[in-house]
Amino acid sequence: MTALEKLLQKNEEGKFICVGLDTDLKRIPAHLKNYTDPVLEFNKAIIKKTYKHAAAYKLNFAFYESNGDTGLKTLEKTIAFIPKEILTIGDAKRGDIGNTSQMYAHAIFNQFKCDASTINPLMGEDSVLPFLEDPAKLNFILALTSNPGANDFEKLKLKDGSYLFQKIIDKVKAWNKKNNCGIVFGATKIEELQENIDRFGKLPVLLPGVGAQGGSLEDVVKLFKEKKRTGFIINVSRSIIYKSEENDFAFASEKEIIGLNKIIKGI
Amino acid sequence: MTALEKLLQKNEEGKFICVGLDTDLKRIPAHLKNYTDPVLEFNKAIIKKTYKHAAAYKLNFAFYESNGDTGLKTLEKTIAFIPKEILTIGDAKRGDIGNTSQMYAHAIFNQFKCDASTINPLMGEDSVLPFLEDPAKLNFILALTSNPGANDFEKLKLKDGSYLFQKIIDKVKAWNKKNNCGIVFGATKIEELQENIDRFGKLPVLLPGVGAQGGSLEDVVKLFKEKKRTGFIINVSRSIIYKSEENDFAFASEKEIIGLNKIIKGI
Repeated sequence: MTALEKLLQKNEEGKFICVGLDTDLKRIPAHLKNYTDPVLEFNKAIIKKTYKHAAAYKLNFAFYESNGDTGLKTLEKTIAFIPKEILTIGDAKRGDIGNTSQMYAHAIFNQFKCDASTINPLMGEDSVLPFLEDPAKLNFILALTSNPGANDFEKLKLKDGSYLFQKIIDKVKAWNKKNNCGIVFGATKIEELQENIDRFGKLPVLLPGVGAQGGSLEDVVKLFKEKKRTGFIINVSRSIIYKSEENDFAFASEKEIIGLNKIIKGI
Repeated sequence: MTALEKLLQKNEEGKFICVGLDTDLKRIPAHLKNYTDPVLEFNKAIIKKTYKHAAAYKLNFAFYESNGDTGLKTLEKTIAFIPKEILTIGDAKRGDIGNTSQMYAHAIFNQFKCDASTINPLMGEDSVLPFLEDPAKLNFILALTSNPGANDFEKLKLKDGSYLFQKIIDKVKAWNKKNNCGIVFGATKIEELQENIDRFGKLPVLLPGVGAQGGSLEDVVKLFKEKKRTGFIINVSRSIIYKSEENDFAFASEKEIIGLNKIIKGI
């Protein structure tokens, strides 16, 4: 199964929530701190309770890298623990000159064995192409992000009247020769999604910015349904994994994702 | 000594070459492969022979990450081996939403103990600011890179007539409240540097793209001298560290950097 097939399969099952494993040692319940690897124990407990309901897992590399080589071991073990039929996204937002991107792609896909990556495209085509070599992988390229800083450059207006993020989307479509590209598009404002969804073509979309960051889950799903469009996942991190910061955290995460799936089903 | 002071001190000594430790296991001499950590042995040998002549060392994180947790240990040990008076740049080109950039900054500065970082600013202000908290560090923000893909987005013309990379430079100047920002500006075409150098203000500059990638060392140094401007380093990676791929590699790297320093002195 290719990464894209995994995603579409879950969408078919009515699953659209990507669980973001942005696990911060400082925020996990006290009783886990007696384990050799508390972050791994936390992740395993969350995965056990959510995998039947999740469309994907997104691993934010920063949270693991900040613990150095130990953190990367935790990252590797977490990914190995995720059932093979569920898409794993290495959210590393890399991008560098060709020979360096090649190394980053190797790290994400071969070393950490992720199905998918996120890519920062600022440095252009030769910084992106090394990630796109394997048609079985999937690459979500940053177009419009969900943070306030998106206004600084991504939303700059170009001479031809389009926005930078729109130019990025057009380039991604051109790069998508192996059907293994997607985009990241922040869902903080539904109007932006409405205005641009047709421009996406068939590109799979990873949508951050729903919930804590402001966008409405209902609005996003409704729009994709109106467009008769699958191939999308909505990332939810903190409001699932830290739903409870007590001993019942894993149960609380399960309850939360089931609740989100119910909302989606009802639309 | 702050990171900026380290850089300026070396410039004062007539040193402007930043040695890029993009060490690829596949390219290091056969006899080193018997060591437990061949990349570390290679780096140590290069550092021993070049540190008296180098203005800085740049560690390309991709080359270490691609070896997983083992690679990160090599990275840590390499940085620890570099004499304290020489600037170490963690070339990771990170950038993400605020809480994530915070984690990346922690990894680069506290975990790997680099003096400086490189940052990808696509996601804007809140993705950059977490790196700028410590005035003793230095942050080279990507403005114009030296690869062909720089044409795709960095050189797009904006509605106001400027280029995206120029807008980035202006933002970096605004962010530079703690005097710990710099820029990456590719030296592939001297005309681009000539046209933009006044826009840099006093920002320190990390210049890739000299040598193998096309720019002329003489032209770059001459221009900065004409402008009576220090606070810049020219990155050279492969043509120093792989000058010879035989047993004499470390001697060859020393000879190469001494040669480059002589050219600079003669300008």
